[in-house]
Amino acid sequence: MRSNNARLPNLADEGIPMRSFSIRTHKHTQFLDITREVQSALSDLGIKGGVVTVFVPHTTAGITINENADPDVTADIADALDKVVPWQANYKHCEGNAAAHVKASMMGSAVQVIIEDGRLQLGTWQAIYFCEFDGPRSRNVWVR
Amino acid sequence: MRSNNARLPNLADEGIPMRSFSIRTHKHTQFLDITREVQSALSDLGIKGGVVTVFVPHTTAGITINENADPDVTADIADALDKVVPWQANYKHCEGNAAAHVKASMMGSAVQVIIEDGRLQLGTWQAIYFCEFDGPRSRNVWVR
Amino acid sequence: MRSNNARLPNLADEGIPMRSFSIRTHKHTQFLDITREVQSALSDLGIKGGVVTVFVPHTTAGITINENADPDVTADIADALDKVVPWQANYKHCEGNAAAHVKASMMGSAVQVIIEDGRLQLGTWQAIYFCEFDGPRSRNVWVR
Repeated sequence: MRSNNARLPNLADEGIPMRSFSIRTHKHTQFLDITREVQSALSDLGIKGGVVTVFVPHTTAGITINENADPDVTADIADALDKVVPWQANYKHCEGNAAAHVKASMMGSAVQVIIEDGRLQLGTWQAIYFCEFDGPRSRNVWVR
Repeated sequence: MRSNNARLPNLADEGIPMRSFSIRTHKHTQFLDITREVQSALSDLGIKGGVVTVFVPHTTAGITINENADPDVTADIADALDKVVPWQANYKHCEGNAAAHVKASMMGSAVQVIIEDGRLQLGTWQAIYFCEFDGPRSRNVWVR
Repeated sequence: MRSNNARLPNLADEGIPMRSFSIRTHKHTQFLDITREVQSALSDLGIKGGVVTVFVPHTTAGITINENADPDVTADIADALDKVVPWQANYKHCEGNAAAHVKASMMGSAVQVIIEDGRLQLGTWQAIYFCEFDGPRSRNVWVR
Protein backbone atom coordinates (compact mmCIF):
# COMPACT_ATOMS: atom_id res chain seq x y z
CA MET A 1 0.00 0.00 0.00
CA ARG A 2 2.77 2.45 0.83
CA SER A 3 4.19 2.62 -2.64
CA ASN A 4 0.71 3.20 -4.03
CA ASN A 5 0.01 5.99 -1.60
CA ALA A 6 3.37 7.54 -2.27
CA ARG A 7 2.48 7.89 -5.94
CA LEU A 8 -1.03 9.19 -5.46
CA PRO A 9 -0.10 12.87 -5.10
CA ASN A 10 1.48 12.77 -8.57
CA LEU A 11 -1.53 11.03 -10.04
CA ALA A 12 -4.41 13.03 -8.62
CA ASP A 13 -3.51 16.31 -10.23
CA GLU A 14 -7.06 17.64 -10.59
CA GLY A 15 -6.82 19.35 -7.24
CA ILE A 16 -3.70 21.39 -8.02
CA PRO A 17 -4.72 25.08 -8.09
CA MET A 18 -3.34 27.35 -10.79
CA ARG A 19 -0.54 29.81 -10.12
CA SER A 20 -0.96 33.49 -10.90
CA PHE A 21 1.66 36.18 -11.26
CA SER A 22 1.44 39.91 -11.93
CA ILE A 23 3.38 41.99 -14.40
CA ARG A 24 3.55 45.70 -15.12
CA THR A 25 3.67 46.91 -18.70
CA HIS A 26 5.26 50.31 -19.39
CA LYS A 27 4.22 51.15 -22.94
CA HIS A 28 1.00 51.22 -24.95
CA THR A 29 2.16 48.25 -27.04
CA GLN A 30 4.79 45.98 -25.53
CA PHE A 31 5.95 42.39 -25.89
CA LEU A 32 7.26 41.26 -22.50
CA ASP A 33 9.35 38.08 -22.12
CA ILE A 34 7.68 36.13 -19.28
CA THR A 35 9.49 32.80 -19.78
CA ARG A 36 11.29 33.05 -16.43
CA GLU A 37 8.09 33.86 -14.53
CA VAL A 38 6.28 30.95 -16.20
CA GLN A 39 9.11 28.55 -15.32
CA SER A 40 8.98 29.77 -11.72
CA ALA A 41 5.19 29.27 -11.56
CA LEU A 42 5.66 25.81 -13.03
CA SER A 43 8.16 24.92 -10.32
CA ASP A 44 5.67 26.14 -7.68
CA LEU A 45 2.96 23.95 -9.22
CA GLY A 46 5.27 20.95 -8.88
CA ILE A 47 4.24 19.50 -12.25
CA LYS A 48 7.07 17.39 -13.63
CA GLY A 49 5.77 16.35 -17.03
CA GLY A 50 2.97 16.88 -19.52
CA VAL A 51 1.79 20.19 -20.93
CA VAL A 52 1.38 23.55 -19.19
CA THR A 53 -1.18 26.20 -20.20
CA VAL A 54 -0.25 29.87 -19.83
CA PHE A 55 -3.45 31.95 -19.87
CA VAL A 56 -4.02 35.71 -20.10
CA PRO A 57 -7.29 36.74 -18.35
CA HIS A 58 -7.54 40.04 -20.26
CA THR A 59 -9.23 41.05 -23.53
CA THR A 60 -6.82 43.76 -24.72
CA ALA A 61 -3.67 41.66 -24.30
CA GLY A 62 -2.55 38.36 -25.78
CA ILE A 63 0.27 35.84 -25.55
CA THR A 64 2.62 34.33 -28.12
CA ILE A 65 5.86 32.39 -28.52
CA ASN A 66 8.56 33.89 -30.74
CA GLU A 67 12.26 34.78 -30.99
CA ASN A 68 14.10 36.16 -27.96
CA ALA A 69 17.57 36.61 -29.50
CA ASP A 70 16.88 39.86 -31.39
CA PRO A 71 14.40 42.27 -29.74
CA ASP A 72 13.71 43.70 -33.21
CA VAL A 73 11.64 40.58 -33.95
CA THR A 74 8.90 41.33 -31.41
CA ALA A 75 9.09 45.03 -32.36
CA ASP A 76 8.45 44.00 -35.98
CA ILE A 77 5.51 41.79 -34.91
CA ALA A 78 3.98 44.70 -32.96
CA ASP A 79 4.49 47.06 -35.93
CA ALA A 80 3.04 44.56 -38.41
CA LEU A 81 -0.06 44.12 -36.23
CA ASP A 82 -0.42 47.92 -36.06
CA LYS A 83 -0.49 48.07 -39.85
CA VAL A 84 -2.95 45.17 -40.16
CA VAL A 85 -5.22 46.54 -37.42
CA PRO A 86 -4.83 50.35 -37.25
CA TRP A 87 -5.69 52.05 -33.96
CA GLN A 88 -8.17 54.39 -35.69
CA ALA A 89 -10.55 52.77 -38.18
CA ASN A 90 -14.20 53.67 -37.56
CA TYR A 91 -14.63 51.02 -34.88
CA LYS A 92 -17.98 50.81 -33.08
CA HIS A 93 -16.62 50.05 -29.59
CA CYS A 94 -16.92 53.28 -27.62
CA GLU A 95 -13.86 52.82 -25.42
CA GLY A 96 -11.53 53.57 -28.33
CA ASN A 97 -9.39 50.44 -27.89
CA ALA A 98 -11.10 48.08 -30.37
CA ALA A 99 -7.80 47.49 -32.17
CA ALA A 100 -6.34 46.06 -28.95
CA HIS A 101 -9.23 43.56 -28.76
CA VAL A 102 -8.69 42.48 -32.39
CA LYS A 103 -4.95 42.00 -31.86
CA ALA A 104 -5.61 40.05 -28.64
CA SER A 105 -7.73 37.55 -30.59
CA MET A 106 -5.13 37.36 -33.38
CA MET A 107 -2.37 36.37 -30.93
CA GLY A 108 -4.67 34.31 -28.69
CA SER A 109 -5.25 34.18 -24.95
CA ALA A 110 -3.18 31.07 -24.16
CA VAL A 111 -0.10 29.12 -25.17
CA GLN A 112 0.79 25.52 -24.39
CA VAL A 113 4.31 24.31 -23.68
CA ILE A 114 5.50 20.75 -23.13
CA ILE A 115 7.19 20.02 -19.75
CA GLU A 116 9.87 17.42 -19.04
CA ASP A 117 11.67 16.99 -15.70
CA GLY A 118 9.79 20.05 -14.49
CA ARG A 119 11.28 22.30 -17.20
CA LEU A 120 9.58 24.15 -20.07
CA GLN A 121 10.59 22.59 -23.38
CA LEU A 122 11.14 25.43 -25.87
CA GLY A 123 13.07 25.66 -29.13
CA THR A 124 16.53 27.27 -29.11
CA TRP A 125 15.27 30.74 -30.02
CA GLN A 126 11.83 30.60 -28.41
CA ALA A 127 10.52 32.63 -25.49
CA ILE A 128 7.00 33.24 -24.16
CA TYR A 129 5.79 36.81 -24.68
CA PHE A 130 2.97 38.66 -22.97
CA CYS A 131 1.53 40.97 -25.65
CA GLU A 132 0.30 44.28 -24.23
CA PHE A 133 -1.93 46.10 -26.71
CA ASP A 134 -3.50 48.78 -24.46
CA GLY A 135 -0.98 49.65 -21.75
CA PRO A 136 0.63 50.66 -19.62
CA ARG A 137 -1.28 48.53 -17.10
CA SER A 138 -0.96 46.01 -14.31
CA ARG A 139 -1.71 42.58 -15.73
CA ASN A 140 -2.04 38.98 -14.52
CA VAL A 141 -0.94 35.69 -16.02
CA TRP A 142 -2.34 32.32 -14.97
CA VAL A 143 -0.34 29.07 -15.21
CA ARG A 144 -1.71 25.52 -14.92
CA MET B 1 -8.42 0.03 -0.24
CA ARG B 2 -11.73 1.83 -0.16
CA SER B 3 -10.26 5.32 -0.12
CA ASN B 4 -7.96 4.36 -2.97
CA ASN B 5 -10.81 3.02 -5.05
CA ALA B 6 -12.89 6.07 -4.30
CA ARG B 7 -10.21 8.27 -5.83
CA LEU B 8 -9.49 6.16 -8.86
CA PRO B 9 -12.28 7.57 -11.07
CA ASN B 10 -10.74 11.02 -10.68
CA LEU B 11 -7.29 9.73 -11.48
CA ALA B 12 -7.92 7.56 -14.50
CA ASP B 13 -9.25 10.28 -16.74
CA GLU B 14 -8.02 8.88 -20.05
CA GLY B 15 -11.27 7.03 -20.54
CA ILE B 16 -13.53 10.08 -20.23
CA PRO B 17 -15.17 10.68 -23.63
CA MET B 18 -15.50 14.21 -24.95
CA ARG B 19 -18.80 16.10 -24.84
CA SER B 20 -20.27 17.58 -28.00
CA PHE B 21 -22.94 20.22 -28.39
CA SER B 22 -24.61 21.74 -31.42
CA ILE B 23 -25.26 25.37 -32.20
CA ARG B 24 -27.08 27.15 -34.99
CA THR B 25 -25.61 30.32 -36.50
CA HIS B 26 -27.97 32.80 -38.15
CA LYS B 27 -25.70 35.13 -40.11
CA HIS B 28 -22.86 34.78 -42.58
CA THR B 29 -20.37 36.11 -40.05
CA GLN B 30 -21.29 35.79 -36.39
CA PHE B 31 -19.51 35.63 -33.05
CA LEU B 32 -21.64 33.49 -30.72
CA ASP B 33 -21.04 33.45 -26.94
CA ILE B 34 -20.85 29.73 -26.02
CA THR B 35 -19.47 30.13 -22.47
CA ARG B 36 -22.63 28.74 -20.87
CA GLU B 37 -22.72 25.71 -23.18
CA VAL B 38 -19.03 24.99 -22.48
CA GLN B 39 -19.58 25.23 -18.70
CA SER B 40 -22.51 22.85 -19.03
CA ALA B 41 -20.44 20.36 -21.04
CA LEU B 42 -17.67 20.65 -18.44
CA SER B 43 -20.11 19.80 -15.67
CA ASP B 44 -21.26 16.76 -17.68
CA LEU B 45 -17.63 15.65 -18.07
CA GLY B 46 -17.22 15.80 -14.30
CA ILE B 47 -13.72 17.28 -14.51
CA LYS B 48 -13.03 19.33 -11.39
CA GLY B 49 -9.60 20.81 -12.11
CA GLY B 50 -6.95 21.21 -14.76
CA VAL B 51 -7.43 22.60 -18.25
CA VAL B 52 -10.32 22.09 -20.69
CA THR B 53 -9.96 22.19 -24.48
CA VAL B 54 -12.84 23.58 -26.55
CA PHE B 55 -12.44 22.40 -30.15
CA VAL B 56 -14.24 23.40 -33.36
CA PRO B 57 -14.32 20.51 -35.90
CA HIS B 58 -14.95 22.83 -38.87
CA THR B 59 -12.64 24.60 -41.33
CA THR B 60 -14.69 27.75 -42.02
CA ALA B 61 -15.28 28.61 -38.37
CA GLY B 62 -12.95 29.34 -35.47
CA ILE B 63 -13.03 30.05 -31.75
CA THR B 64 -11.67 32.87 -29.61
CA ILE B 65 -11.89 34.46 -26.17
CA ASN B 66 -12.74 38.17 -25.97
CA GLU B 67 -14.96 40.78 -24.30
CA ASN B 68 -18.61 40.02 -23.57
CA ALA B 69 -19.65 43.34 -21.98
CA ASP B 70 -20.03 45.37 -25.19
CA PRO B 71 -21.25 43.41 -28.26
CA ASP B 72 -19.57 46.06 -30.42
CA VAL B 73 -16.22 44.45 -29.58
CA THR B 74 -16.89 41.18 -31.40
CA ALA B 75 -18.58 43.15 -34.22
CA ASP B 76 -15.36 45.16 -34.54
CA ILE B 77 -13.26 41.98 -34.59
CA ALA B 78 -15.45 40.53 -37.36
CA ASP B 79 -15.23 43.78 -39.36
CA ALA B 80 -11.45 44.03 -38.90
CA LEU B 81 -11.02 40.45 -40.14
CA ASP B 82 -13.19 41.29 -43.17
CA LYS B 83 -10.84 44.14 -44.04
CA VAL B 84 -7.71 42.04 -43.53
CA VAL B 85 -9.11 39.07 -45.47
CA PRO B 86 -11.68 40.36 -48.03
CA TRP B 87 -14.33 37.92 -49.22
CA GLN B 88 -13.39 38.49 -52.88
CA ALA B 89 -9.65 38.48 -53.67
CA ASN B 90 -8.74 36.17 -56.56
CA TYR B 91 -8.66 33.08 -54.35
CA LYS B 92 -8.00 29.70 -56.00
CA HIS B 93 -10.43 27.65 -53.90
CA CYS B 94 -13.43 26.98 -56.13
CA GLU B 95 -16.09 26.99 -53.40
CA GLY B 96 -15.86 30.75 -53.02
CA ASN B 97 -15.35 30.69 -49.25
CA ALA B 98 -11.54 30.83 -49.06
CA ALA B 99 -11.69 33.92 -46.83
CA ALA B 100 -13.62 31.91 -44.23
CA HIS B 101 -10.82 29.31 -44.19
CA VAL B 102 -8.16 32.01 -43.73
CA LYS B 103 -10.07 33.64 -40.88
CA ALA B 104 -10.62 30.23 -39.23
CA SER B 105 -6.85 29.69 -39.10
CA MET B 106 -6.27 33.24 -37.83
CA MET B 107 -8.62 32.72 -34.86
CA GLY B 108 -7.66 29.05 -34.38
CA SER B 109 -9.66 25.85 -33.93
CA ALA B 110 -9.35 25.50 -30.15
CA VAL B 111 -9.10 27.47 -26.91
CA GLN B 112 -7.89 26.26 -23.51
CA VAL B 113 -9.38 27.41 -20.23
CA ILE B 114 -8.22 26.59 -16.70
CA ILE B 115 -10.76 24.80 -14.44
CA GLU B 116 -11.03 25.04 -10.66
CA ASP B 117 -13.78 23.44 -8.55
CA GLY B 118 -15.42 22.38 -11.80
CA ARG B 119 -15.77 25.98 -13.04
CA LEU B 120 -14.20 27.72 -16.04
CA GLN B 121 -11.69 30.33 -14.86
CA LEU B 122 -12.08 33.39 -17.10
CA GLY B 123 -11.13 37.03 -16.63
CA THR B 124 -13.82 39.54 -15.62
CA TRP B 125 -14.67 40.56 -19.19
CA GLN B 126 -13.89 37.31 -20.98
CA ALA B 127 -16.29 34.98 -22.79
CA ILE B 128 -15.73 32.11 -25.24
CA TYR B 129 -16.91 32.91 -28.77
CA PHE B 130 -17.67 30.54 -31.62
CA CYS B 131 -16.62 32.44 -34.78
CA GLU B 132 -18.87 31.69 -37.75
CA PHE B 133 -17.26 32.81 -41.02
CA ASP B 134 -19.48 31.03 -43.58
CA GLY B 135 -22.96 30.75 -42.11
CA PRO B 136 -25.71 30.39 -41.42
CA ARG B 137 -25.10 26.73 -40.57
CA SER B 138 -25.53 24.03 -37.95
CA ARG B 139 -22.21 23.59 -36.15
CA ASN B 140 -20.70 21.37 -33.45
CA VAL B 141 -18.34 22.13 -30.59
CA TRP B 142 -16.29 19.47 -28.79
CA VAL B 143 -15.23 19.81 -25.15
CA ARG B 144 -12.63 17.69 -23.31
CA MET C 1 -4.08 -5.04 -5.52
CA ARG C 2 -3.40 -6.51 -8.93
CA SER C 3 -6.16 -4.61 -10.70
CA ASN C 4 -4.94 -1.40 -9.10
CA ASN C 5 -1.37 -1.97 -10.18
CA ALA C 6 -2.53 -2.87 -13.66
CA ARG C 7 -4.13 0.55 -14.00
CA LEU C 8 -1.28 2.60 -12.57
CA PRO C 9 0.69 2.96 -15.80
CA ASN C 10 -2.31 4.65 -17.39
CA LEU C 11 -2.74 6.99 -14.46
CA ALA C 12 0.78 8.22 -13.82
CA ASP C 13 1.30 9.93 -17.16
CA GLU C 14 3.61 12.70 -15.95
CA GLY C 15 6.65 10.60 -16.75
CA ILE C 16 5.78 10.01 -20.41
CA PRO C 17 8.40 11.79 -22.55
CA MET C 18 7.29 13.69 -25.65
CA ARG C 19 7.76 12.29 -29.16
CA SER C 20 9.60 14.27 -31.80
CA PHE C 21 9.63 13.82 -35.55
CA SER C 22 11.49 15.61 -38.33
CA ILE C 23 10.14 16.94 -41.58
CA ARG C 24 11.77 18.54 -44.61
CA THR C 25 10.11 21.50 -46.30
CA HIS C 26 10.85 22.14 -49.97
CA LYS C 27 9.58 25.64 -50.63
CA HIS C 28 9.92 29.06 -49.03
CA THR C 29 6.29 29.01 -47.94
CA GLN C 30 4.64 25.61 -47.59
CA PHE C 31 1.72 24.08 -45.69
CA LEU C 32 2.59 20.44 -45.02
CA ASP C 33 -0.07 17.93 -43.90
CA ILE C 34 1.45 16.19 -40.84
CA THR C 35 -1.70 14.46 -39.57
CA ARG C 36 -0.32 10.99 -40.26
CA GLU C 37 2.97 11.73 -38.48
CA VAL C 38 1.11 13.15 -35.46
CA GLN C 39 -1.14 10.06 -35.28
CA SER C 40 1.95 7.85 -35.44
CA ALA C 41 3.66 9.80 -32.64
CA LEU C 42 0.46 9.55 -30.61
CA SER C 43 0.43 5.77 -31.01
CA ASP C 44 4.07 5.68 -29.85
CA LEU C 45 3.16 7.74 -26.78
CA GLY C 46 0.49 5.19 -25.92
CA ILE C 47 -2.00 7.85 -24.82
CA LYS C 48 -5.53 6.55 -25.30
CA GLY C 49 -7.66 9.53 -24.34
CA GLY C 50 -7.55 13.20 -23.44
CA VAL C 51 -5.93 15.98 -25.45
CA VAL C 52 -2.66 15.96 -27.38
CA THR C 53 -0.50 19.05 -27.94
CA VAL C 54 1.43 19.35 -31.22
CA PHE C 55 4.21 21.93 -30.77
CA VAL C 56 6.54 23.60 -33.28
CA PRO C 57 9.89 24.56 -31.66
CA HIS C 58 10.71 27.15 -34.35
CA THR C 59 10.05 30.90 -34.66
CA THR C 60 9.65 31.20 -38.44
CA ALA C 61 7.13 28.37 -38.77
CA GLY C 62 3.70 27.77 -37.28
CA ILE C 63 0.97 25.16 -37.14
CA THR C 64 -2.73 25.21 -37.96
CA ILE C 65 -5.74 22.99 -38.63
CA ASN C 66 -7.62 23.49 -41.89
CA GLU C 67 -9.12 21.77 -44.94
CA ASN C 68 -7.30 18.86 -46.57
CA ALA C 69 -9.75 18.08 -49.41
CA ASP C 70 -8.73 20.90 -51.77
CA PRO C 71 -5.02 21.89 -51.68
CA ASP C 72 -6.08 25.32 -52.99
CA VAL C 73 -7.33 26.13 -49.48
CA THR C 74 -3.90 26.09 -47.84
CA ALA C 75 -2.45 27.85 -50.91
CA ASP C 76 -5.05 30.59 -50.41
CA ILE C 77 -4.18 30.86 -46.70
CA ALA C 78 -0.48 31.20 -47.56
CA ASP C 79 -1.26 33.86 -50.21
CA ALA C 80 -3.58 35.78 -47.89
CA LEU C 81 -0.89 35.86 -45.18
CA ASP C 82 1.62 37.13 -47.78
CA LYS C 83 -0.69 40.04 -48.56
CA VAL C 84 -1.35 40.82 -44.89
CA VAL C 85 2.34 40.55 -43.96
CA PRO C 86 4.47 41.38 -47.03
CA TRP C 87 8.01 39.98 -47.15
CA GLN C 88 9.50 43.45 -47.65
CA ALA C 89 8.13 46.22 -45.40
CA ASN C 90 10.89 48.19 -43.65
CA TYR C 91 11.28 45.63 -40.88
CA LYS C 92 13.98 46.21 -38.26
CA HIS C 93 15.10 42.57 -37.89
CA CYS C 94 18.39 42.30 -39.74
CA GLU C 95 18.00 38.70 -40.94
CA GLY C 96 15.40 39.70 -43.52
CA ASN C 97 12.80 37.15 -42.43
CA ALA C 98 10.70 39.28 -40.06
CA ALA C 99 7.53 38.48 -42.04
CA ALA C 100 8.05 34.78 -41.27
CA HIS C 101 8.17 35.57 -37.54
CA VAL C 102 4.95 37.61 -37.76
CA LYS C 103 3.13 34.85 -39.65
CA ALA C 104 4.39 32.24 -37.15
CA SER C 105 2.73 34.17 -34.31
CA MET C 106 -0.46 34.64 -36.35
CA MET C 107 -0.84 30.89 -36.89
CA GLY C 108 0.54 29.94 -33.45
CA SER C 109 3.16 27.47 -32.26
CA ALA C 110 0.81 24.70 -31.10
CA VAL C 111 -2.51 23.01 -31.78
CA GLN C 112 -4.55 20.79 -29.47
CA VAL C 113 -6.56 17.81 -30.65
CA ILE C 114 -8.89 15.58 -28.62
CA ILE C 115 -7.99 11.86 -28.50
CA GLU C 116 -10.37 8.92 -28.12
CA ASP C 117 -9.37 5.23 -28.30
CA GLY C 118 -5.88 6.40 -29.18
CA ARG C 119 -7.07 8.24 -32.32
CA LEU C 120 -6.97 11.95 -33.19
CA GLN C 121 -10.53 13.33 -33.29
CA LEU C 122 -10.73 15.73 -36.24
CA GLY C 123 -13.65 17.08 -38.25
CA THR C 124 -14.44 15.52 -41.63
CA TRP C 125 -12.36 18.00 -43.63
CA GLN C 126 -9.69 18.82 -41.05
CA ALA C 127 -5.98 18.03 -41.19
CA ILE C 128 -3.02 19.32 -39.17
CA TYR C 129 -0.67 21.53 -41.19
CA PHE C 130 2.92 22.51 -40.46
CA CYS C 131 3.27 26.08 -41.80
CA GLU C 132 6.72 26.79 -43.24
CA PHE C 133 7.31 30.52 -43.67
CA ASP C 134 11.08 30.61 -44.25
CA GLY C 135 12.07 27.39 -46.00
CA PRO C 136 13.23 25.17 -47.36
CA ARG C 137 14.55 23.75 -44.08
CA SER C 138 14.71 20.69 -41.84
CA ARG C 139 12.17 21.13 -39.06
CA ASN C 140 11.03 19.31 -35.92
CA VAL C 141 7.59 18.75 -34.44
CA TRP C 142 7.00 17.75 -30.82
CA VAL C 143 3.97 15.73 -29.68
CA ARG C 144 2.76 15.23 -26.10
